[in-house]
Amino acid sequence: MALLLGLSGHDVLSQGLRVPDSRVNDVSKRAFNFCAGPAALPTAVLERAQAELLDWQGLGLSVMEMSHRSDAYVAIASKAEQDLRDLLTIPDNYKVLFLQGGASQQFAEIPLNLLPESGVADYIDTGIWSRKAIDEARRFGQVNVAASAKPYDYFSIPGQNEWQLSERAAYLHYASNETIGGVQFDWVPEVGETPLVVDMSSDILSRSIDVSRYGLIYAGAQKNIGPSGLVVVIVREDLLGRARSSCPTMLDYKVAADNGSMYNTPATFSWYLAGLVFEWLKEQGGVEAMEARNRAKKDLLYSFIDSSEFYANPIAPNARSWMNVPFRLADERLDKAFLAGADARGLLNLKGHRSVGGMRASIYNAVGLDAVEALVAYMGEFEKEHG
Amino acid sequence: MALLLGLSGHDVLSQGLRVPDSRVNDVSKRAFNFCAGPAALPTAVLERAQAELLDWQGLGLSVMEMSHRSDAYVAIASKAEQDLRDLLTIPDNYKVLFLQGGASQQFAEIPLNLLPESGVADYIDTGIWSRKAIDEARRFGQVNVAASAKPYDYFSIPGQNEWQLSERAAYLHYASNETIGGVQFDWVPEVGETPLVVDMSSDILSRSIDVSRYGLIYAGAQKNIGPSGLVVVIVREDLLGRARSSCPTMLDYKVAADNGSMYNTPATFSWYLAGLVFEWLKEQGGVEAMEARNRAKKDLLYSFIDSSEFYANPIAPNARSWMNVPFRLADERLDKAFLAGADARGLLNLKGHRSVGGMRASIYNAVGLDAVEALVAYMGEFEKEHG
Repeated sequence: MALLLGLSGHDVLSQGLRVPDSRVNDVSKRAFNFCAGPAALPTAVLERAQAELLDWQGLGLSVMEMSHRSDAYVAIASKAEQDLRDLLTIPDNYKVLFLQGGASQQFAEIPLNLLPESGVADYIDTGIWSRKAIDEARRFGQVNVAASAKPYDYFSIPGQNEWQLSERAAYLHYASNETIGGVQFDWVPEVGETPLVVDMSSDILSRSIDVSRYGLIYAGAQKNIGPSGLVVVIVREDLLGRARSSCPTMLDYKVAADNGSMYNTPATFSWYLAGLVFEWLKEQGGVEAMEARNRAKKDLLYSFIDSSEFYANPIAPNARSWMNVPFRLADERLDKAFLAGADARGLLNLKGHRSVGGMRASIYNAVGLDAVEALVAYMGEFEKEHG
Repeated sequence: MALLLGLSGHDVLSQGLRVPDSRVNDVSKRAFNFCAGPAALPTAVLERAQAELLDWQGLGLSVMEMSHRSDAYVAIASKAEQDLRDLLTIPDNYKVLFLQGGASQQFAEIPLNLLPESGVADYIDTGIWSRKAIDEARRFGQVNVAASAKPYDYFSIPGQNEWQLSERAAYLHYASNETIGGVQFDWVPEVGETPLVVDMSSDILSRSIDVSRYGLIYAGAQKNIGPSGLVVVIVREDLLGRARSSCPTMLDYKVAADNGSMYNTPATFSWYLAGLVFEWLKEQGGVEAMEARNRAKKDLLYSFIDSSEFYANPIAPNARSWMNVPFRLADERLDKAFLAGADARGLLNLKGHRSVGGMRASIYNAVGLDAVEALVAYMGEFEKEHG
């Protein structure tokens, strides 16, 4: 599109930082990354971003350097939204918002938008992240913890027959997957007309869902969507316009929805990268294909752990996470050696969260079956050597 | 660091998105980008980010894929902060925060942190952005507009002798540069013990400042710092810990400061890119060198405009922005032709903001003198043809 005049060269721009010898990295050097988040991204997505980083489609500038109001960027942003709508079959009466501040900011944004000052909200406590949501919501109104996994040491999820729901809750909040504990709902709560509000940060797009069963879905991007600094909110339209007068404008869902998530400058590059991930997911066969792969991945890892006397996962079978698999070695004095050996083989970030200890393998969409196979092979070798 | 096992290849990962033919872009194709924001970034910074996008320093993963708590990422983040401290000579009793939500979220965050419910804050109105800050602050407490540029049609800044300051303001807020109006303070207000709170989104790092004169400096990244989705806050320590009980945890400066801006997952890739920009600035000779360049750039453009009967800039000479130069053609029916000719020459994003009309050249740090020379050459040619 843009032709350059003269090409006198960018005087200030040409001097800068030293670029390492090999400009384009050797993809074979990519490690298997089991990080809980920010997590692995598809190599194909990073290659595409790399290829167009200085010049997007011949426009002469990076996506990072585009006005968010430009035709080019609006097309990028709209395509990302449409691809996400296609992937999750999001009904027309839901808005899709691309916001900032991560899930932690949503912990405040949800009560500020949906909990009347005299109302009550039901929350389910299944681990560290849902408790954080509870603590923040309590700062803004009445919270009823309708059920807690504490009596089960957070190793399983209390069935709905054990829940103490409020008469007229403004909403019910739960986390479909607990990244740290490795606990995941394999069912959707039935709460009648009460809007379901769900933190899907660590399992969105990993398997099929029926969006119409939820009032609001939110997900920090840095697990299954894209880079950190972006949070996606999918919200039913009738839940917009209820924000408290004390809600900061930037935290009001209706303001975001009315402005196409561009009330101010959004996180443009993260949104673009999320779009590349959505495109990649469609090319892979969509959420259904990811679900089949994710099932194969978690089956391989859990069945290996269960077949071993050396490794253990404490979670009740029906509450085991497909995305985050914590496990322990029989002798925790071997943890360091296990991690060092893994690192040496390019199996990275297997150390468990500091609050839990042991190991954790996060196996999000971008972590292939080959990564899990490599992990299991290493675990077998390590057990043979040290078991 | 990481050696790979087997190199069986990433099955899921290798299929994805088509990569354009030329993997690495030809830098000579980079246009001159006068966008107001998200704005041009130094080509050297983008080249460095491109080179290490799939594999940061042999670690086998992208910066985007690193845990924010990993040693590697903490080193990246700390270096970025230290480089910014060096560039601006930030005193030790100031915290530097890397937050999300842009300047617009700061418009709420500032009163929520610094304005007691029974207090009053002074604001100076010099254009669209400072008025947005005023409107948002009014939602949280008493605002005294101590001075307004409205009587001057926002073409100049009222001198401090015209200001009506409050007796005991919690702080005085102003925008050192108005991106849309093209109006900039060339002086720092003298308000005694009252903390100065300044929106430096569009002129931070463009010339020397004395940080110790301010209580709080904030700047959206997408002009002189890095990509959008990041906002930098530099705050004097004694102003921390004053947040209202109704302030969301994520908006509380003390929480951010106590957690090194990692209460939750920060915008890791944007922070890293900001760090590359800071490194580039140091290599260029720091803020003093940029100030000399920026002075030369704005002198060239304003003196050309002033010497022409065909182009005009309405701003009072002592209030003219070094960063954003709005100008009008003698006949606005020529605007379209001017923009089309500019586009064809790779002089992009010169259209003025919709609220102002005409043209605007944003000439931030990453826009070189050669870009301004090319612009002035084109303006001269266009005038010869159409004047």
